[in-house]
Amino acid sequence: MARIFSGIQPSGELHIGNYLGAVKNWVQLQDQHPDAIFCIVDYHALTGNYDPAALRQRTREMAVSLLAAGIDPAKATLYAQSTVPQHTELAWIFNTITPLGELERQTQYKDKASRQESVVVGLLTYPVLQAADILLYRADTVPVGEDQVQHLELSREVARKWNLRFALEDAPYFPEPQPLLTPTRRIMGLDGKAKMSKSMGNTIGLLESGDEIWAKLRPAVTDPARVRKTDPGTPQVCNIYHLHKAFSPAPVVAEVAEKCSTAAWGCIACKQVLFEHMEAELVPIRRRAAELRDQPDLASEALAAGTARCRAIAAETMTAVKSAMGLE
Amino acid sequence: MARIFSGIQPSGELHIGNYLGAVKNWVQLQDQHPDAIFCIVDYHALTGNYDPAALRQRTREMAVSLLAAGIDPAKATLYAQSTVPQHTELAWIFNTITPLGELERQTQYKDKASRQESVVVGLLTYPVLQAADILLYRADTVPVGEDQVQHLELSREVARKWNLRFALEDAPYFPEPQPLLTPTRRIMGLDGKAKMSKSMGNTIGLLESGDEIWAKLRPAVTDPARVRKTDPGTPQVCNIYHLHKAFSPAPVVAEVAEKCSTAAWGCIACKQVLFEHMEAELVPIRRRAAELRDQPDLASEALAAGTARCRAIAAETMTAVKSAMGLE
Repeated sequence: MARIFSGIQPSGELHIGNYLGAVKNWVQLQDQHPDAIFCIVDYHALTGNYDPAALRQRTREMAVSLLAAGIDPAKATLYAQSTVPQHTELAWIFNTITPLGELERQTQYKDKASRQESVVVGLLTYPVLQAADILLYRADTVPVGEDQVQHLELSREVARKWNLRFALEDAPYFPEPQPLLTPTRRIMGLDGKAKMSKSMGNTIGLLESGDEIWAKLRPAVTDPARVRKTDPGTPQVCNIYHLHKAFSPAPVVAEVAEKCSTAAWGCIACKQVLFEHMEAELVPIRRRAAELRDQPDLASEALAAGTARCRAIAAETMTAVKSAMGLE
Repeated sequence: MARIFSGIQPSGELHIGNYLGAVKNWVQLQDQHPDAIFCIVDYHALTGNYDPAALRQRTREMAVSLLAAGIDPAKATLYAQSTVPQHTELAWIFNTITPLGELERQTQYKDKASRQESVVVGLLTYPVLQAADILLYRADTVPVGEDQVQHLELSREVARKWNLRFALEDAPYFPEPQPLLTPTRRIMGLDGKAKMSKSMGNTIGLLESGDEIWAKLRPAVTDPARVRKTDPGTPQVCNIYHLHKAFSPAPVVAEVAEKCSTAAWGCIACKQVLFEHMEAELVPIRRRAAELRDQPDLASEALAAGTARCRAIAAETMTAVKSAMGLE
């Protein structure tokens, strides 16, 4: 069995940071792996401040974005976490074997907790739910960004602990899931300063129109040392250059580097070339999104099929887990 | 709606401490309240050291004990917690609104954590699962011992917090459950020193034979100041006297107090009177237990009916909770 599992927050429409940093990779993985499960993690979304009235809409929009971006229900399984309650059941079970100290040492927890006056316990147990997400399907491979590597190490420890205590010595039940690091480096926002993220307001939406994208791209920050068009630039410090590397073919990327460093192209000309190549990739995605919005049943049916499959796998896992632990 | 909920650990056969301290009261409550739910809390049992191979057997034995003691499936609902996974789902949801600090302040947690080298996080979130146990059925009344009063206060806070954030202002969804303190004082063990408990090895099993009970009762500790039969005793400090108050009719209790303090009865005579009255109450219970063991389907069917009813209520609650929170 080789099964891939990965999750994404229900943040509504994807932006190109999510797309390049995770989802484009998922689309490739679904072709290489016969069994890939992608989960919109709405249970996880509850630990932050969130708007209950908007969450369901955002989950649905995320499904549309993912399908438009190329997740294919014929190849991969897509569903919303809260439609498979066994995630929380296995999370409780893992709570009973996970040392408190391990959770208190998680960097993300310490970071988030240090910025809040009152911390909810769900923030502490969040990585236990992540371990349950992955192990519920006995997935052995988890495409993640570097910021999730520590949580995945915890998942492996949970798997080891459970196997040690409840599985037969020569037949560990849970695999120890390995990270599959996403090849794309972090995409910076249009301000060129922080990681592209909705909360920073520095994003390009995956489904925005060409006009909207150009309106954002045109004034976007480039190499700050390049004040006049005639100043030679340093591509490596320019966010637009990194977007070229994500969207433009290799010869174009080489050309961009040359024209920038010799001041042969101004930044606007460089952005126009980028925009063309972005459009080549994004127009078909926008077209699929429009189709999906015209026929909302398509996304609902994809999610329902994913839920049905995941519930069946989850039921099997929980039967084995409960039997081994003496639960009813 | 007035609904009672209470839980008991799956510790196998009841002992008379559990019986007098909780279950005898439940049997009375099921006649007074049209809707009483009693739960064998096997999910909770996982937070301590336990034997997985024995747990299921203990859950079944607890069901037999409860039914033999008088829990009547025609009047009350009896089931095992792990057959209704929504307990854990609601617990995760409550984790996302429960401040970590509130849990760290729970006396039982501090007490247990201080006696362990490594603490699992489930010990910390245990009272959140308890809140979910109760609120999943929107129970408003919870028969408990005094040691559970603080946990129940936490359940009320969780209910208030959830209502404030997710319910309409004039229509709180969850009631704030009130404790119904068990009238019987704690039953001491046969050593007269510690609370009767399985781990102390000082119990009388509810289903033990008359011979076994007499063999334990005969050497049991009485007033330590009463060295010779002719010494007058002080009933209030004698554990046997407290057992008389639990099992013997009021005129007999008065007689015991008098005969003890005047040294008219020796301790053995006093214990023989107690034994008679214990047998009057326990013989029918043992008889029912024997019938239940002869026909294991009886207990299984009672549990299955309880599970079916609880799942239906739980599904209704979770639909409302998820809808209010924007979950799928």
